[in-house]
Amino acid sequence: MYSRSARRSLLSSGLGLNTWLVPRLGQRFLARRRRGAAGQPLLYNEHVFEFTRTAQQGRARTGVFRTSHGDLLTPVFAPVGTLATVKTLTPAQVDELGATLVLANSYHLYLRPGDDVVSELGGLHRFMRWPRPLLTDSGGFQVFSLSQTRKIDDDGVTFQSHIDGSTHRFTPQRAIRIQENLGADIIMAFDECSDPNDHAYSRIAMERTHRWAEICVRAKRRADQALFGIVQGGVNPDLRAESARFIASLDTPGIAIGGLSVGETKAEMHAMLDVVTPLLPEDKPRYLMGVGTPEDLIDGVRRGVDIFDCVLPTRLARHNAAFSSEGRLNLMNASFARDERPLDQDCDCYTCRTFTRAYLRHLVVAKELLAGTLLSIHNLRALIRLVDEMRGCIIDGTFESKVDGWLDQWQGNAERSNKEIVNGE
Amino acid sequence: MYSRSARRSLLSSGLGLNTWLVPRLGQRFLARRRRGAAGQPLLYNEHVFEFTRTAQQGRARTGVFRTSHGDLLTPVFAPVGTLATVKTLTPAQVDELGATLVLANSYHLYLRPGDDVVSELGGLHRFMRWPRPLLTDSGGFQVFSLSQTRKIDDDGVTFQSHIDGSTHRFTPQRAIRIQENLGADIIMAFDECSDPNDHAYSRIAMERTHRWAEICVRAKRRADQALFGIVQGGVNPDLRAESARFIASLDTPGIAIGGLSVGETKAEMHAMLDVVTPLLPEDKPRYLMGVGTPEDLIDGVRRGVDIFDCVLPTRLARHNAAFSSEGRLNLMNASFARDERPLDQDCDCYTCRTFTRAYLRHLVVAKELLAGTLLSIHNLRALIRLVDEMRGCIIDGTFESKVDGWLDQWQGNAERSNKEIVNGE
Repeated sequence: MYSRSARRSLLSSGLGLNTWLVPRLGQRFLARRRRGAAGQPLLYNEHVFEFTRTAQQGRARTGVFRTSHGDLLTPVFAPVGTLATVKTLTPAQVDELGATLVLANSYHLYLRPGDDVVSELGGLHRFMRWPRPLLTDSGGFQVFSLSQTRKIDDDGVTFQSHIDGSTHRFTPQRAIRIQENLGADIIMAFDECSDPNDHAYSRIAMERTHRWAEICVRAKRRADQALFGIVQGGVNPDLRAESARFIASLDTPGIAIGGLSVGETKAEMHAMLDVVTPLLPEDKPRYLMGVGTPEDLIDGVRRGVDIFDCVLPTRLARHNAAFSSEGRLNLMNASFARDERPLDQDCDCYTCRTFTRAYLRHLVVAKELLAGTLLSIHNLRALIRLVDEMRGCIIDGTFESKVDGWLDQWQGNAERSNKEIVNGE
Repeated sequence: MYSRSARRSLLSSGLGLNTWLVPRLGQRFLARRRRGAAGQPLLYNEHVFEFTRTAQQGRARTGVFRTSHGDLLTPVFAPVGTLATVKTLTPAQVDELGATLVLANSYHLYLRPGDDVVSELGGLHRFMRWPRPLLTDSGGFQVFSLSQTRKIDDDGVTFQSHIDGSTHRFTPQRAIRIQENLGADIIMAFDECSDPNDHAYSRIAMERTHRWAEICVRAKRRADQALFGIVQGGVNPDLRAESARFIASLDTPGIAIGGLSVGETKAEMHAMLDVVTPLLPEDKPRYLMGVGTPEDLIDGVRRGVDIFDCVLPTRLARHNAAFSSEGRLNLMNASFARDERPLDQDCDCYTCRTFTRAYLRHLVVAKELLAGTLLSIHNLRALIRLVDEMRGCIIDGTFESKVDGWLDQWQGNAERSNKEIVNGE
């Protein structure tokens, strides 16, 4: 016999295995697709991927991005579910965070369980039971980070699996096919992310990224997926401007900014955003890939970014660390042994509503897996709450007056890092 | 901004940090305690620990055991939360399983975070945020399983911590004091669990267990805790009968049966239950410690057992195995790669309502921690559901007619094992 709360949860979950309805828009839209030449817009379904700006203050803006799995209110922070799972959390828990968009990694899912298997099983939404919008990267970032075991040419990259060393090849066409098999709402062009400090190589990588973006636009078949081109160009303002103009000319339904938060300074990242976002069309969402910390989200939103994702909240959680307005907390610290306060007095997450720091420290010291779950809930909710708060303040016109306070509050909570991206998150 | 379901969950959780109310019955009852001599009943509060039988069929019975944290409907299966956490699950998820009683381990909590710390933080219910009844063992089973590093004498046991090798000593008095610090509703006398195949030693261990039970009864101070004496005697029917009579004479509010499911055969366990339960008072709940598999629960209930606990469901989950009516499933098995069925068609747990075997296999192969969570939910719910079903059938008089079907359905789902109990579960 189920308890009353269990019955309520059962009734309200909407994630039931037998009642699952995948919008099979892909099938319907495939019949309507028209292959566009490079630079010529594809026919997207007019009701899908519409981006409506709802408010603006300075360069910060709010909007609604329509997808076939529901509307995204922007700015939005996407938890990362590398292997079709936001690590340690059930989809019900991810939903309770207020998350609306989840990111998954094509490289990882191509290797395990295989994009063909995911396709057979009805696509990624159905496979992982996430009914809201999904975004997949192209696999490019992961493949290029396999610096010892990959060989690049003008048509693609040959690389060895980090799991078993087997040899594989990604091309722009292949990256699109994999993402069509996975079936996320937002998919990415195959790009080359170069070392930001190697200026000479940045042009080569950018030009290759542009050629590949054109190939991806032509290769794309499913009209229920929004393909985003990716702006590259390292930390060179001229290249970034050239790349922004070129990618904008492809008229994809959204534009990603790649190659940032990969080793450059914060000042360099800000400078690149200051070059790029003013050159992008106002009526397309902008996605800053792999960013970031609380400060990075604030700095990104004020510079006109709409979509963010980062592994940091869940990775920090697995390393016993929590965001808080007191700065980053390391739960191994003995000072928490009898601390009856929640992680963050102002946080409304399940962890902060329920548990003391003393209990969380006990779980961490005892290496109990629940620690990772509870800290992931808190860290993800902290970023989602911050972005929600920024959205509200853009709408009510108080955004600019709050920025310094937010930056002060969240300062020093976390270094940026996208290292070790291949092995898990 | 929280989603609608998140808000609903927030409102309904009842586990809020700030609104937490621990029934401080202990304080009130301490004033009324009266120290009883050996064999003389303690004064328990008349409203607490009342056991009311509600139905009986053969020796199988249903009842209501009142505790200061709510009523337990028996028979009941208790998930094990060794270190004040049912491994990988939040209390909200444990609640959703329909669990009413959770077990925690005195030995482990004494070492980490320390029973004094738990006491300072308001006791175990408040510490781990479990608002329903809790049971603690005395630590005896864990200490005696440290066979290389413990030394027993008539007054207690000196042993070395499995964590850092430091030396500690448990006596019956100490075991009670630790359990009073933890504050569970049901606590256990300090007993010696001997090798079931060492018949000569069984009498020595049993007699020591009896002396220690008397000491525990005298040492106990909190009237809001129900102390259970423990029947020992190995696999010797004479000793078991003698032990059942002796422990029953102490008139504790419930009686535990220890030293089973520790290496003897199933036939031996059944024979011992057949000796013991008929000698126990009908109006006290009987707790079969550390048992068991689905079959063991069926065999136990039909022999008059009311309370069970076992690490098996969560331990199997961490080893990628699931109970099912098809027999135990090993989710690593490649045959599940494209299997769109739930783990068990008849199961109503979150995992079975939501995910395919193919997805669960993917999580297992990718070593994603969510696998342990989802399999724990399923395995625990399977046992709780089985016990609930048995309770219903005892009440409607169909229990005996269903036993063979249940045994057939659950046959071969799991070996029994209580090994490796010290290191985690």
